[in-house]
Amino acid sequence: MDRIVLDSPLDMHVHFRTGNMLKFVVPYTACNFAGAMVMPNTDPIIDNHYALCRYREEIKAACKDAFFEPYMTLYFQTSYTRQMLEECRQDVLAIKLYPRGITTNSGHGVLISDPEVETVLGYMTELGIPLSVHGETDGYVMRREREFMRTYERWAVKYPKLKIIMEHISTAEAVNVLGTYPNVFATVTPHHLLMTTDDLCGDMLRPHLFCKPLLKSPEDRAALQALVLGELSDELQRKVMLGTDSAPHAKNKKECDCGCAGVFNAPYALPSIVPLFVEKDKLPELQRFVSDNAKAIYGIDTLPKMVELHRESQRANAFLGHLVGPKDDSYVCVVPMYADQILRWRVRKTWVDPVRTKVVLPKSPLAK
Amino acid sequence: MDRIVLDSPLDMHVHFRTGNMLKFVVPYTACNFAGAMVMPNTDPIIDNHYALCRYREEIKAACKDAFFEPYMTLYFQTSYTRQMLEECRQDVLAIKLYPRGITTNSGHGVLISDPEVETVLGYMTELGIPLSVHGETDGYVMRREREFMRTYERWAVKYPKLKIIMEHISTAEAVNVLGTYPNVFATVTPHHLLMTTDDLCGDMLRPHLFCKPLLKSPEDRAALQALVLGELSDELQRKVMLGTDSAPHAKNKKECDCGCAGVFNAPYALPSIVPLFVEKDKLPELQRFVSDNAKAIYGIDTLPKMVELHRESQRANAFLGHLVGPKDDSYVCVVPMYADQILRWRVRKTWVDPVRTKVVLPKSPLAK
Repeated sequence: MDRIVLDSPLDMHVHFRTGNMLKFVVPYTACNFAGAMVMPNTDPIIDNHYALCRYREEIKAACKDAFFEPYMTLYFQTSYTRQMLEECRQDVLAIKLYPRGITTNSGHGVLISDPEVETVLGYMTELGIPLSVHGETDGYVMRREREFMRTYERWAVKYPKLKIIMEHISTAEAVNVLGTYPNVFATVTPHHLLMTTDDLCGDMLRPHLFCKPLLKSPEDRAALQALVLGELSDELQRKVMLGTDSAPHAKNKKECDCGCAGVFNAPYALPSIVPLFVEKDKLPELQRFVSDNAKAIYGIDTLPKMVELHRESQRANAFLGHLVGPKDDSYVCVVPMYADQILRWRVRKTWVDPVRTKVVLPKSPLAK
Repeated sequence: MDRIVLDSPLDMHVHFRTGNMLKFVVPYTACNFAGAMVMPNTDPIIDNHYALCRYREEIKAACKDAFFEPYMTLYFQTSYTRQMLEECRQDVLAIKLYPRGITTNSGHGVLISDPEVETVLGYMTELGIPLSVHGETDGYVMRREREFMRTYERWAVKYPKLKIIMEHISTAEAVNVLGTYPNVFATVTPHHLLMTTDDLCGDMLRPHLFCKPLLKSPEDRAALQALVLGELSDELQRKVMLGTDSAPHAKNKKECDCGCAGVFNAPYALPSIVPLFVEKDKLPELQRFVSDNAKAIYGIDTLPKMVELHRESQRANAFLGHLVGPKDDSYVCVVPMYADQILRWRVRKTWVDPVRTKVVLPKSPLAK
């Protein structure tokens, strides 16, 4: 098989940042996906309706004329009232919860033990707003996700009508929890699906693969692969969505004495995961993973944006942006996942199904 | 207790490199230690008597007039003959074995399964040359040392008269093996003794703490601390030596897309470990760990170089050398362990016991 057409791929977990970085990175997602769920851990955080709408406008402006829908999220705050959530319900796809201090811009996150957390979970259950979670404790880095499973389990049992999305799962334990509770769902990133701790620090140290949760063991990766490929069960496969967790940081903030966490994979997310599915002849599972499952879980619809990939080698860019530039905030240079390596597939074209619309998509910034 | 005098501290595992880097780093070890066992994984490697003697001269020249003894090692090669080893026996403290490809300049290392390895181990046993080992497999990075234990155990049983030194141990499993075989010994680094994976990548990524073996879990660190403090047994405590594994790389080779492995801790190795022993009132154990055990295990004697530390706060240098310089090999800028952090102890002075000698030591390059 040398050609695949994906129907309306969705990235259910992406970081766009703000300002110049946002303008720079949004097109890489917009040209490859029909839509994306945008994380609210910007600086300042997205914690009210007005900020959310303004942030959506900023993203749409950066798309230019691309056919792309940003799905917005609020940053979980214990101060949210039922009325406030009700008023912005129509514009919010999910509320993202960060335990305090465990990742980029999580200083405004919650203490999991705070009883006020459950008050807001109650409102969300009543209003049908899904809960999206960065599920890690502040324990030993290799055990943080495993230790958070207790919290997922407690919430899953206490709020059976609340949809809980375990974001960017990285461990076999999370796959087990996914299989146990009907109201628990998950996203998986390309890097957790394809890489292990060895890629980060087995040979040389690769700061551009440093992320949270940390890349895990070969056994954990095998559990994630079995999950997305439907080898565990068809039912379980329908609970998992692609969420790239594409998280750009300027090159100089990754390659320094105190490197930031985050993998910028938006440019090559789809080409990177295709071989895993193609080699095992699992195209229906690929389509479900990159789109159908998210539509069913979140109850969203998209316009029929088709993304066509060809089996055709490409060398991923070593960096994107300007390697040397003014040291103000207009300087953008990011190193993508698989920088300077050969990928076997590439996005060849995207279009909107002509039967249903005549919108013409702009060319991908990566297309030759 | 506000003042400690260590008698002839020895660093039983150090990397000096060659050329300008050697000239730059040797004084940091020479001013704090009476001697150090120097690793042979230079470029080119130290694999013959002539290279070894020339390398020792290069190190001694870099010491200038410091009172310091470099103990030399050969890079384990399966091509070594009994005659060759016999001829250089007097100048060799140990032979260092690197499994191929698992750390800096280990491309000339051996395949553990190669039967020729055992031929050379036989010669070493006959000649009484200790075997120093970087004990890691090429498996999953968090399990490499654990997986290598089988090899240590096989050799320990097959060559009961061969002294085997497990270098820079990082796991509770290695502590167990140490306790099982009378002919197995170990070195422990300050960073494995004091830090965990969380220091490397729990919060931000800290490339200057990237080393091999990788920093491990809190439980592994606790096992190492119990070992050196003598909490497991007095017998076991006598089998463990300080080996800093101080391994300098230029700042720009650590903070980049493919960072090198190695922690440069020579400047602050002694001040960093003192609090662990002082807080538990374990000064005899400290003296044994930093000197007496190595003397007994290797059967070496040193001149009585005294190193006096005071309880006195100091801020570790953020870097040493030139932050910006010519991009040829004369450029040296290294970031030490604990860069820009406060240490509670400092080396105040060193002297040679006047009863036995009148040599006057030069001032430490770090002393104010």
